[in-house]
Amino acid sequence: MHRLAKIGLAAALVAGVSSVAMAQAKPEEAIRARQAIMRVVALNFGPMGKMGAGEIPFNRDAFAAYATRLEAVVTMNPQNFFVPGTDQPVAGAKIANFTDARPEIWQSPEKFKSAMEKMQQEVGKLARAARTGDEKTMKVQAGEVGKTCKGCHDDYRSK
Amino acid sequence: MHRLAKIGLAAALVAGVSSVAMAQAKPEEAIRARQAIMRVVALNFGPMGKMGAGEIPFNRDAFAAYATRLEAVVTMNPQNFFVPGTDQPVAGAKIANFTDARPEIWQSPEKFKSAMEKMQQEVGKLARAARTGDEKTMKVQAGEVGKTCKGCHDDYRSK
Repeated sequence: MHRLAKIGLAAALVAGVSSVAMAQAKPEEAIRARQAIMRVVALNFGPMGKMGAGEIPFNRDAFAAYATRLEAVVTMNPQNFFVPGTDQPVAGAKIANFTDARPEIWQSPEKFKSAMEKMQQEVGKLARAARTGDEKTMKVQAGEVGKTCKGCHDDYRSK
Repeated sequence: MHRLAKIGLAAALVAGVSSVAMAQAKPEEAIRARQAIMRVVALNFGPMGKMGAGEIPFNRDAFAAYATRLEAVVTMNPQNFFVPGTDQPVAGAKIANFTDARPEIWQSPEKFKSAMEKMQQEVGKLARAARTGDEKTMKVQAGEVGKTCKGCHDDYRSK
């Protein structure tokens, strides 16, 4: 197999925490997985967003560490866990579950996927901004990421 | 400052941020945070554990990607989220919550902390093993990480 094809396969397999593994997973496990990923995203982005908005003191090293970790986490492709049959809580599941996901996700899956990919791109830019070490660049890009979070939540998450 | 020292400092600061932030957080938020982190740990370690045990085919690139991401995630120090008052589900909380944490965590917090740090060390070794690219080294170390998972779950997680 060509090296590029191999890398592509590896990427597919890793995205495959998502696709492959999730195709076999129970719906409540997919719900739990996406919520866990998004919560870890929030735990890392939260402080960066607050630093960007001047709500907490700017700390270059902490910001950089959060940004690097966030970049790694979003490669888990949370969008792939919004599989069919997970638009409602799963009744009678062994795992307690709920979902704030709106039906629009399954009505326009390509649009939803694009919105999530936009978030991943902005997070990539945030990690690169953090590597410059320039406070203003970092804060501005934190604002951009925050906008993609809000945009997606407005459209696809119940209030 | 040396690059490694810088990374160490950044990690310490971020761990610091999580301690401080969590001291102010509601107990149900701490429970949700630690469960999300541990779920993301499981989503990444799961396939590596299965590759190590020969349950799914070995894929060097996928393994390496999981290991790198896992190394980043465990620096979130999930042990810091087992704060006082989170040994029981929080009644009446807005966020649905439950916990499988056993009272031993709060009875012997230093022992629990050591066990979690051992896990972090073994995950660090796993990432280094993945960077060698040697299949046997990677599989053996996946086994070692699996043992620390199981050890902690046996002692500190309800069945």
